[in-house]
Amino acid sequence: MSLIIIGTVAFDAIETPFGKTDKIVGGAATYASLAASYFYDKVKIVGVVGDDFQKKDIDLLDTHGIDTEGLQIKAGEKSFFWSGKYHNDMNSRDTLVTELNVLADFDPVIPESYQDCEYLMLGNLTPQIQQTVIKRLKNKPKLIVLDTMNFWMDVAMDDLLETIKLIDVLTINDAEARQLSGEYSLVKAAKKILEMGPKYLIIKKGEHGALLFHEDKVFSTPALPLAEVFDPTGAGDTFAGGFIGYLAKVGTINFNNMKNAIVYGSALASFCVEKFGTERILNLSEAEIAERIKEFVSLSSFTIEN
Amino acid sequence: MSLIIIGTVAFDAIETPFGKTDKIVGGAATYASLAASYFYDKVKIVGVVGDDFQKKDIDLLDTHGIDTEGLQIKAGEKSFFWSGKYHNDMNSRDTLVTELNVLADFDPVIPESYQDCEYLMLGNLTPQIQQTVIKRLKNKPKLIVLDTMNFWMDVAMDDLLETIKLIDVLTINDAEARQLSGEYSLVKAAKKILEMGPKYLIIKKGEHGALLFHEDKVFSTPALPLAEVFDPTGAGDTFAGGFIGYLAKVGTINFNNMKNAIVYGSALASFCVEKFGTERILNLSEAEIAERIKEFVSLSSFTIEN
Repeated sequence: MSLIIIGTVAFDAIETPFGKTDKIVGGAATYASLAASYFYDKVKIVGVVGDDFQKKDIDLLDTHGIDTEGLQIKAGEKSFFWSGKYHNDMNSRDTLVTELNVLADFDPVIPESYQDCEYLMLGNLTPQIQQTVIKRLKNKPKLIVLDTMNFWMDVAMDDLLETIKLIDVLTINDAEARQLSGEYSLVKAAKKILEMGPKYLIIKKGEHGALLFHEDKVFSTPALPLAEVFDPTGAGDTFAGGFIGYLAKVGTINFNNMKNAIVYGSALASFCVEKFGTERILNLSEAEIAERIKEFVSLSSFTIEN
Repeated sequence: MSLIIIGTVAFDAIETPFGKTDKIVGGAATYASLAASYFYDKVKIVGVVGDDFQKKDIDLLDTHGIDTEGLQIKAGEKSFFWSGKYHNDMNSRDTLVTELNVLADFDPVIPESYQDCEYLMLGNLTPQIQQTVIKRLKNKPKLIVLDTMNFWMDVAMDDLLETIKLIDVLTINDAEARQLSGEYSLVKAAKKILEMGPKYLIIKKGEHGALLFHEDKVFSTPALPLAEVFDPTGAGDTFAGGFIGYLAKVGTINFNNMKNAIVYGSALASFCVEKFGTERILNLSEAEIAERIKEFVSLSSFTIEN
């Protein structure tokens, strides 16, 4: 039994008001698999890189017990590269460079050893690739989580609608939920989206936390208010990885576990933004994570005696 | 012992995507005192209206047990009038008309019977008027809550800084917290603001809920996700009124009671937006309020066993 995470594995160059990086390892699958590795020890990655991706970069994943057999390395080609600059508010950014490189004709390969997949995280990629992965798995996973973005709603809405019919959990932000449903009210948006296929909808609201919708139920978790957001890159992917990693660990899918999974995902994301790139989520201790969870409990708990 | 609420008592004409109203009774003190009246039976209002304010308008407050001795009625003058139109997203609005009328030279009168004031809510008015009210009370109230807005930071910052030295709880929105402190991070903003005098800071984030800061502690409450926001007018004042009314009822000021007060304030505000103006908060039943509180508990509670 395993958790497969498919998504970009990339180089990023990031500039924030606090400084800038050279090319560092990034990508949705990198952040998500690192986050998931804190909860579950059978995390397997599917992705593609060029031969500019070095042994030490793969070692980074290996040392977290992440299986990289499904990570294709294309000789003579370059890895996906993204460069961006955050504004002072850290909530908006300009993309400076996007070089698809190996991603342009990415055809995901599912190794035979991955066919024990029980949990599947489909990171933000074309809906067609996401659908291909589902179809290449011989058995339907117990839980499929899909992350997507407004870009695919603009250019591949039909494919996206086909794909989300096949999944269990959809994660998007509030603007994307409004775009996908055509409804401004998030309650109405959620109702429509849950009729499109997913059983659960997670609406990510960045510094305002996240909402979970399921049937007629709704759960809201805050983001941890932080004195300093150093670099938001990868926070959403870290959230998703922590979320599905926690669910893989507990092994039972229900609304209560889903709520806890969102809190764990939020906790991991709150670490991610404290340093550049993946730096902060490379070496978290169990005690640190437990302490952060306590902060979330204290942040949102109250006791009213009616 | 009593709870005094000072603020505007006004006529509003409101237009939303759902319809429009003629002149209806509004104003911060109206919303706040109605909300507070559900928790505490000694609510006293300080404000000013013109003689266009009719007996039935005063009866509206009387029937909720709100003492109106401090509500001055200026013969031959007109009440404060505000007219606004909400955009489709209901989060932004255009002010169409603001007629100060009686408010232009408002000099608050504190009747002798109000000198038992234990809880004081200073609704959004000039900082000078807010300060005058504090000074006209012979005894320092047990709790002073002050609501203000960016306008006073623009035109009367020095007065505002003087006034907030005298209070216990400041309620502002996130943009205002950033403006007042010069810090983008709300954690840093809160730290600075708590050094300016208030012991507690409430940052109102509209559809994203509210944050409470006190010493090194922070509490976050979500807003209830609603299918339909019919008219947001007065929601912030209803929140503040429910908040201080609940505290007046429990009578002990500490962080835990403050957290519950924020949940009660949020619950009352969630009713307010369901109909035009004060309509929805005129006749709430205890059962309705208890039910709404249950929804807040369910919305934000989770149980993690470490």
